[in-house]
Order: sequence, then structure tokens, then C-alpha cells
Amino acid sequence: MAKAVVLLSGGLDSATVLAIARHQGFECHALTCLYGQRHGLEVEAARQVARSLDAAEHLVIRVDLGAIGGSALTDWQIHVPDGPAQQGVPITYVPARNTVLLALALAWAEAIGAFDIFIGVHAVDAGGYPDCRQAFIQAFEDLANVATAAAVQGLGRFRIHAPLINMTKAQIIRKGLELGVDYRLTRSCYRPDPKGRSCGRCLACRVRLDAFAELGLEDGIPYTHDHAGS
Amino acid sequence: MAKAVVLLSGGLDSATVLAIARHQGFECHALTCLYGQRHGLEVEAARQVARSLDAAEHLVIRVDLGAIGGSALTDWQIHVPDGPAQQGVPITYVPARNTVLLALALAWAEAIGAFDIFIGVHAVDAGGYPDCRQAFIQAFEDLANVATAAAVQGLGRFRIHAPLINMTKAQIIRKGLELGVDYRLTRSCYRPDPKGRSCGRCLACRVRLDAFAELGLEDGIPYTHDHAGS
Repeated sequence: MAKAVVLLSGGLDSATVLAIARHQGFECHALTCLYGQRHGLEVEAARQVARSLDAAEHLVIRVDLGAIGGSALTDWQIHVPDGPAQQGVPITYVPARNTVLLALALAWAEAIGAFDIFIGVHAVDAGGYPDCRQAFIQAFEDLANVATAAAVQGLGRFRIHAPLINMTKAQIIRKGLELGVDYRLTRSCYRPDPKGRSCGRCLACRVRLDAFAELGLEDGIPYTHDHAGS
Repeated sequence: MAKAVVLLSGGLDSATVLAIARHQGFECHALTCLYGQRHGLEVEAARQVARSLDAAEHLVIRVDLGAIGGSALTDWQIHVPDGPAQQGVPITYVPARNTVLLALALAWAEAIGAFDIFIGVHAVDAGGYPDCRQAFIQAFEDLANVATAAAVQGLGRFRIHAPLINMTKAQIIRKGLELGVDYRLTRSCYRPDPKGRSCGRCLACRVRLDAFAELGLEDGIPYTHDHAGS
């Protein structure tokens, strides 16, 4: 069984990607990167998702993007606004985040002999994130195949898989449900309360709630605020 | 004055690069990444080098490549051999290391409004490291310009500078001396002793000592072993 490294955040998208990679027959090595994001809760969610979807292994790596700053997701002094999305690049954009995450995934992939890397980016609902587009994924794949001993020595060719890239949030959830994802294990909120409940109001919560509503389904995770009519 | 991010390891090469970037008129923001390498001494060396070469700022970021393993430089169970270099990729190759370092440099550059990133790779003495070649540098530059909001929004174009790439170690030292680098502040050894003295025998020490010898100069740092005739 070929190995794959799957970036797993504890969110809804990457859980779906893990299920897709498993369904495609890969032995999945799940990688969670703690990059100083506000929601350490995501790590516990990632652990549960990895276990529930039979990941062969789950590695958690720390990388201190908080020291770099520049984003509401890593800098406590920047306020995360309520949804809906603004025009352009969102304040929750983390500079070069997916480049850093894919670089770490590539390092681990090379160390364990994997050539397939999965990431849960999608361009539809994500709006203005530059590192969620196909051009970025392709550029990283090109880089991976000149950057590594494994590729240069001809042991294999790296592939960056972004299976959600053209899907809406509702399509992602529908796909995951087909593959047995338990979305109650996942978390999406940018600013959960101290009890771990999602706010229901930030962009990530709005997109999630709208997608469940579109499918006529209940989102089974705890929220701080009543989200009727979302 | 334009800002630049300069990757600074505490070694001889990156100190020279910092001097070159300063000489080119950049306001230099030095970045040291602690990636689980064996030699924490390098960090103190980097601090002193940054100060001596008037870096505007020095940021140290932790990224736990030790959790990934696969290299003698991050995994204590792999023995670092004596020089000279073997054929092919050295055991001291760290999977995707320069990809990770440049990704972090890119993140910081974007956060502070810099578009120039300097890295001290060189292809001549480095032998089989795939991520020290021009093809790698070019691929990363291409990536940077699709990966970031700053580039996609047209605020600027990222450039990855690798000014040492075609230089030998002796040429690097000669250049640095012209620019006022104090190489006694730098360290190169893969396995220094507990007192911080360099071993004089590993590949990094051999290359360094040979280069000073070629220039008819003394290397002014402390060594554990007598290195006469090196």
C-alpha cells in the first residue's frame, strides 16, 4: 500500500481529504502543524479524526508562526471579524501558511518514503486566499520535484493532491458523509469560547453552518450562540 | 531602505550572505530557524553575527524537524561520519530543509513587507544536496510569487538571492573578509564537543579548514583536535 502524507487540521475540509485518501487506497500518515493558531482545540479534533478514519500514524509538529505575526489567526492583537467575507485577501490569511505546511509535509513524506501529499484547500468558498489556488498547488509540486533527494535521485515523483479544490463546502460535506466522516469530531471556528464551543458568527462558522443548511442537515457540534436562520 | 530577510544559521556561509545583503544596501532582518539540529551553539553564534553585521532585527523561530527525522543532523541515533564527502546525497542532508527554511523566510518577509530573501546555499563544495542548486532556488522564487497575497496583489515581486551559489568555500571567505565579516563568531561543526569546540574532522570542519588553508589563513575558532596538515 503506497504511503501518503495528509495535512490534518481538525477542521471539516482536511477530515474529508483524509477520508478521500484512504478511499483511494493510501496508507495515510496524518500531519498536524501547530502554528500558533488560536484554537488548540483543533489538535484534539485532529487526533480524534485521525483515529476515526484509520490513519496509520498521526504526527503533531510545532512551528512558531506566531513569532512572525501578520495574521488574525496567529496574532492575538488582531481581531477576527464576523462574517460574511470581505473583498480581497481575508484578515485571517496567514502569510505563506500553506507553503510552510506543505514544506513540512514534504519533509515528512521524504523521510518516510511517501510521494503523495494531500491538502484540503478549496478555491470556491475560500475567496481571496492566494495559496488555495491550483496555480499554487502546481508550483509547489514543481518545487517538490527539484527540492528533494528522493525526486532528484529518481526514486519517485511527488504529487500534491488537492481533491477539494473545485468543490463548495456543501459538496465537500456530501462527499465526506458518503465516505463515513463523522463531522461531529471536527471544528472550524476561528474563535471558540473557553468551553470549546464554536462562535457561530465568524466566517468559518458561517460557511460551515450555511453548508449544512444547504444540505438540509444539522451540524452536530456545540455552538455558543443560537444560529437559527444562518 | 528596502527590507530583506536573511536566513542566518550561525555558520560561515550565511554570515557572508548577511554582509553581502548589507553591502547591497538592504535593511536586513535576520532569521534563525531552530530545526532540532544538534548544535544549539549555532544560535548564539547567529546572535553575535547578526549584531556584528548590523542586522536591523534577529528573529529565532522553532520548527521541530527532529520529530520528522531522517537525517544525521536532526536524529541523534544516526552517526555523523568523518569527512571527506561520499558520493551522492550526504547523510547530513535534512529532508526538504531548505524548502522549510525558505517557506518560513517567505512568511516573515510577507509579514514585514520585504520582497528580498537571502540564503547561503552553494553548489560547489556542497556536493549532492538537491536544495542547494539554482533549479531549486528558481522553483522556490516561482512558488513565492503565486503563494502570497503580497505578490498576487501586485505589491511587489519576491526574489530569492543565493549570492554564494557558484562560489567555493575559499572564495566565500575571501568575499566575507573584504566585507568585514569576523569569522571567529561563526561555527560550522556538525558535532561540537560539550565546551563548544569544533571537532575538526567532520565534513563541515574539513571543508572550512581546507578553505582557510587554501587562503593561507588561520581559522580563529577553537577545535578539540589538532588539525595540522588538514
